[in-house]
Amino acid sequence: MRYFYAFEAGPDGPVVRALPPRRWQTVLSALMQLRRVSIVGVGLLGGSIGLALRERMPGCQVVGYGHRASTLIEAMRSGALDEAHEDLPAAVRDADLVVLCAPVGLLATLLREMSPHLSQGTIVTDVGSTKRGIVRAAEELLPAGVHFVGSHPMAGSEKRGVRFARADLFDRAVCIMTPTDQTDASALGKVEAFWKLLGMRLTRLSPAEHDRLLADVSHLPHVVAAALVGMQEEVAFDLCGKGFLDVTRIAGGDGGLWRDILLDNRDNVLASIKRLNEQLRELEVLLEARQPETLEAWLRTASERRQQMLERRDSGE
Amino acid sequence: MRYFYAFEAGPDGPVVRALPPRRWQTVLSALMQLRRVSIVGVGLLGGSIGLALRERMPGCQVVGYGHRASTLIEAMRSGALDEAHEDLPAAVRDADLVVLCAPVGLLATLLREMSPHLSQGTIVTDVGSTKRGIVRAAEELLPAGVHFVGSHPMAGSEKRGVRFARADLFDRAVCIMTPTDQTDASALGKVEAFWKLLGMRLTRLSPAEHDRLLADVSHLPHVVAAALVGMQEEVAFDLCGKGFLDVTRIAGGDGGLWRDILLDNRDNVLASIKRLNEQLRELEVLLEARQPETLEAWLRTASERRQQMLERRDSGE
Repeated sequence: MRYFYAFEAGPDGPVVRALPPRRWQTVLSALMQLRRVSIVGVGLLGGSIGLALRERMPGCQVVGYGHRASTLIEAMRSGALDEAHEDLPAAVRDADLVVLCAPVGLLATLLREMSPHLSQGTIVTDVGSTKRGIVRAAEELLPAGVHFVGSHPMAGSEKRGVRFARADLFDRAVCIMTPTDQTDASALGKVEAFWKLLGMRLTRLSPAEHDRLLADVSHLPHVVAAALVGMQEEVAFDLCGKGFLDVTRIAGGDGGLWRDILLDNRDNVLASIKRLNEQLRELEVLLEARQPETLEAWLRTASERRQQMLERRDSGE
Repeated sequence: MRYFYAFEAGPDGPVVRALPPRRWQTVLSALMQLRRVSIVGVGLLGGSIGLALRERMPGCQVVGYGHRASTLIEAMRSGALDEAHEDLPAAVRDADLVVLCAPVGLLATLLREMSPHLSQGTIVTDVGSTKRGIVRAAEELLPAGVHFVGSHPMAGSEKRGVRFARADLFDRAVCIMTPTDQTDASALGKVEAFWKLLGMRLTRLSPAEHDRLLADVSHLPHVVAAALVGMQEEVAFDLCGKGFLDVTRIAGGDGGLWRDILLDNRDNVLASIKRLNEQLRELEVLLEARQPETLEAWLRTASERRQQMLERRDSGE
């Protein structure tokens, strides 16, 4: 069970109390004052946000937008939404918070279309895997008095669609906030409280820093997984063990979604490929020179660094 | 539950009967006539073979060799062995089957050392991840009348040591047999029955073909996983999600073990790195030229091929 710590009145003044989950969820909900949240795009992420909100923020209306009626019906049936709309203006009208959960390639168009229908004081955030483009577009396109805060909740899987949605999808995963000098501090605080309510661990990066680091830890691994699958001869298909299937799991993701991510972040992805090539070139030299000690050290370093990553992740939980 | 099919006498002549596990294990055991199996190297794989044999071939003596007393004690305690020896000649004497489970780099030395102590008719096999070197060494070093059969059971994990051994480690995994024109047909049949008893699915390849394909599906993915870990900046450690940790899981493996595998198969690994580079170069061109359709097709092809691999694996079970 996870606790949240807060000051409470004690007999000798305020004391720090650990609040059990139901209590701190109520505290976070109250802090945010969200009466109406609009989810634009009800797939795996949007649907999971809906399920989590309806469980953890009972007083709040959860509204969904989708361009396919069948998806909206499925989302309503699964209990992810209170209201569903095929009409974007109707879906975002009067929302306190709009969460953009559509593919990266559609975000600018959606922002442009919803912009005239947003109320003063509305906060808009997103779940996009690349951040420079969307943050720039939002700061340009949204009217004054509407606050944009970029977020990247690092949850999801190679599965798509609301039928895989789960209220606990975001639990203990990292959410990267990408504020700029134009970001409203109070809006940032509310969006951070929102992701915390969904169970996430928060960190902050500039949009540029986000895109550079994500190219290394996420976009490049995807590209490499796809390349590893692509290069196999058919006769090798029967020899693919658990190791190979683990390495290439993310290559099972949606091609259209990843096309947009890679194109949006192409400069960083190209730089990451170059750096991977340098690493592989280093290894080629060790193999060509038959240097067992240096080769072993190279492999050991990788193994130890990965162990550090695991420990960092576990200590953060 | 898994069945094994065999001809049995029926009222109108022989019929095919599905034998339940206990029955077909008895049939396989009888076919092999193994009274004494010697496991040289009692780590994760050797220990798991011992546990499985003592469960599935009750009449057979399972003997283990190791150079560390502590490992042998642990193997005896876990129930993987009937007898343990720190002395190699004593461990292999009178064995019907010797299974080499030591790291690839030690196999030639062990063969040379055990060779004078093997009985006529003894079968020797191994579990090495590369096959050209060990098959050549065994065919040169073993005396006439001792039969070598190369095998590569594709089971294991990044964990090491007999304490992780499990009787079901080999269940449903693929075992690649690498016979040559010098391989004794009856010895090959017995070793195949042996791996089948442990639950494995069998396939055959020449040692050269094995090493070429394994460089692609196993050794290169390991190298790439290590390179992906190696290139990360420390600030990115906190951003490593489930996807990254899956892709790089195999990089957690033992450096010394992988050093030997990569050096033994260096020509093929170098060729595999070249082919991966070509795939990545293809992608760079697509990104540089901003070609969304071709890029999406490239990603989709990878996703579909991986799906085919999964289906092949599942249909083989």
